[in-house]
Amino acid sequence: MKNIMVAQSGGPTAAINASLAGVIRGALSSSEYDKIYGAIHGISGVLNENYLELSERARTEEDFLTRLALTPAMFLGSCRVKMRDPIEDPEIYDQIFRSLEKMEIGAFFYIGGNDSMDTVTKLSVAANKRNSAIRFAGVPKTIDNDLIHTDHTPGYGSAAKFIASSMLEIAHDTYIYDLPCVTIVEIMGRDAGWLTASAALARNEYNKTPQLIYLPEVPFHRTQFVEDVRRELKKSKNVVVAVSEGIRDEKGIYISAKEAVADKFGHMQLSGVGKVLENIVKRELHIKVRSIELSILQRCAGHVTAAQDLKESEELGEKAVQLTEEGKTGFMTAINRISDTPYRYEICEASLTEIANKERDVPRAWINEEGNDVTEDMLRYIRPLIGGETATEWKDGLPVYLPVPHLDHAGE
Amino acid sequence: MKNIMVAQSGGPTAAINASLAGVIRGALSSSEYDKIYGAIHGISGVLNENYLELSERARTEEDFLTRLALTPAMFLGSCRVKMRDPIEDPEIYDQIFRSLEKMEIGAFFYIGGNDSMDTVTKLSVAANKRNSAIRFAGVPKTIDNDLIHTDHTPGYGSAAKFIASSMLEIAHDTYIYDLPCVTIVEIMGRDAGWLTASAALARNEYNKTPQLIYLPEVPFHRTQFVEDVRRELKKSKNVVVAVSEGIRDEKGIYISAKEAVADKFGHMQLSGVGKVLENIVKRELHIKVRSIELSILQRCAGHVTAAQDLKESEELGEKAVQLTEEGKTGFMTAINRISDTPYRYEICEASLTEIANKERDVPRAWINEEGNDVTEDMLRYIRPLIGGETATEWKDGLPVYLPVPHLDHAGE
Repeated sequence: MKNIMVAQSGGPTAAINASLAGVIRGALSSSEYDKIYGAIHGISGVLNENYLELSERARTEEDFLTRLALTPAMFLGSCRVKMRDPIEDPEIYDQIFRSLEKMEIGAFFYIGGNDSMDTVTKLSVAANKRNSAIRFAGVPKTIDNDLIHTDHTPGYGSAAKFIASSMLEIAHDTYIYDLPCVTIVEIMGRDAGWLTASAALARNEYNKTPQLIYLPEVPFHRTQFVEDVRRELKKSKNVVVAVSEGIRDEKGIYISAKEAVADKFGHMQLSGVGKVLENIVKRELHIKVRSIELSILQRCAGHVTAAQDLKESEELGEKAVQLTEEGKTGFMTAINRISDTPYRYEICEASLTEIANKERDVPRAWINEEGNDVTEDMLRYIRPLIGGETATEWKDGLPVYLPVPHLDHAGE
Repeated sequence: MKNIMVAQSGGPTAAINASLAGVIRGALSSSEYDKIYGAIHGISGVLNENYLELSERARTEEDFLTRLALTPAMFLGSCRVKMRDPIEDPEIYDQIFRSLEKMEIGAFFYIGGNDSMDTVTKLSVAANKRNSAIRFAGVPKTIDNDLIHTDHTPGYGSAAKFIASSMLEIAHDTYIYDLPCVTIVEIMGRDAGWLTASAALARNEYNKTPQLIYLPEVPFHRTQFVEDVRRELKKSKNVVVAVSEGIRDEKGIYISAKEAVADKFGHMQLSGVGKVLENIVKRELHIKVRSIELSILQRCAGHVTAAQDLKESEELGEKAVQLTEEGKTGFMTAINRISDTPYRYEICEASLTEIANKERDVPRAWINEEGNDVTEDMLRYIRPLIGGETATEWKDGLPVYLPVPHLDHAGE
């Protein structure tokens, strides 16, 4: 019998440990796999031979998997290692395969975003070249929801639930004064507007905010924005604007370009578009205005996750294990939506082709013509994903999460 | 039989509607009071004769009071009217008393912070002068916890619970990378550090963050701050700093002074101290650093309120009604702590003397000698206040709150 290894990579989500729990559950019920190793800090843990043995704990510790699934951010830690091509840098692949063979690994599972799926692709190509029997599988996650080949990504539903709930609470906060006021809420999403679109779910029979929604998929025009706000202020004293951090002008230049720096993958790290819009409103409309950045709470608020999201995340992990048992390698698991209402889906196998290079944007048809709102089709898509609440455990007034196991390594 | 009127004022909290529910409950079970009017937008609603009749709804609508208590921000709307002295501006008092007498009001309840308590004082003085039998009572609230004459203020416990929970979740988010990183979390609290101190509750057996806590009660020294961070980075790769928006240097100048503007009460409106510290760390330590502003989510996150806080808030409202029935006027209700462990308290009557002019700071003895952390005494004080979870109602993935009733008035 072979063992398995699992690792996590990229930016945190509130659902990524549910996928880890799924992989563990899958391996525990497998007749093919024995021990379960968790590599600490993604592929770096494989390179440095830094592992945790998880099977013993999962078998004996009551509630371990339940608690794990409810704990936000990577239980095993993350990394941002950009793997070079096996031809350019064969040594690193030699090292990885040596490390995996030493631990008698039959299958390796990487839970992450498109950079991680790129790593899975490269590892499966390298395995093929060296006739290694080790299977490589990707389990998707990203709050950004911008992976191709899947209806949506784990982590997105919980982030969208946090955003929509916070937008509703911000609306209540906004409504208290009898004075005209503009509130700008900056939401994550570098290149895709999926997260920002979810702000629209806060609307209900009494709350019409956010009245304006700007996504990166449509060029942002400053003058149109000022006109939009001016028009909405005639209709309501409380105007709330949901804006993606990644909005750009017609030339493709980020509105928050002055603050932008590139990370090592060439992704632009942005912040501050809320402040930019705040200043525009202040200067042009001379009105009370404030900006709020939902910040990393969007991805780590473990106390308000979507039960549907965590369920799917776990199923994606479990399915990945089952598919490797069938001999599959070089794939990722994905969600195929069968219907919106009632919401029905299936967990399936998806290709990794082009996944690292392509991003899935919000379709133009799901954004209104003026480019300042989303359509009902968009909302029909998101609604089922934020559904259901999870039973966060609380003690002494605080949520109970699984202790981070790798702090002795991380510290010093 | 007389009627009562109730209004809300100042900044929002997640518990202020629980006090409103308490006032309504108190009036419903009273043999002295008949109808319950809610003035829209604080004292402005009294001046403009803009009321809601609440008793009918409270008597007939199932769950009205329960839902009201769980709804964040002012159900009746707020205002920021600074009342002038009755001698300087008798007309406004004439107008208020005319309005109250017209509605046959026997008692007026104002739920708010120190500016609202100042209004209650002035109204009761004015009543005394004109031999009016109308009684005036204050019900305290402020997330800032800086009112004198009470052990703590309603709204503080829920805000502290949100802050401590978010700090724990931010810690999980922070721990994922194996790279040195400093995270600055800016927390509300203009002049008092109570809210920022609650960040320390996020510490547990595996989480030592936030390692550094800076409150406005102790002068902030830039060089000591840099040394503090440098020292903590030697002990751990993940350093988290909790900082109050209102920290000042030894001359009393706000660290974020460049961004500061004064509101009409002369309070400084601050923001941006997180960014200031982020830039200091970047320049001096050349290390990865980010800043997060918890922003207004601290005061409006109705989905994560402290059951203890809401219970006390309601009791304070109910007690205010009972005290006016006994003939009391010109007072506020308050919380008297009897013991920390087990936590015991009583709801009592408190004086309004000096309440508008004095603020209750964190005692120097509850801050460590170095001025970069809080003591165990401080934590013993806060712990019981964040206890218990409330049963937020969810529908379609979102929290269900009471519809804001005054939007038709606020809009157009």
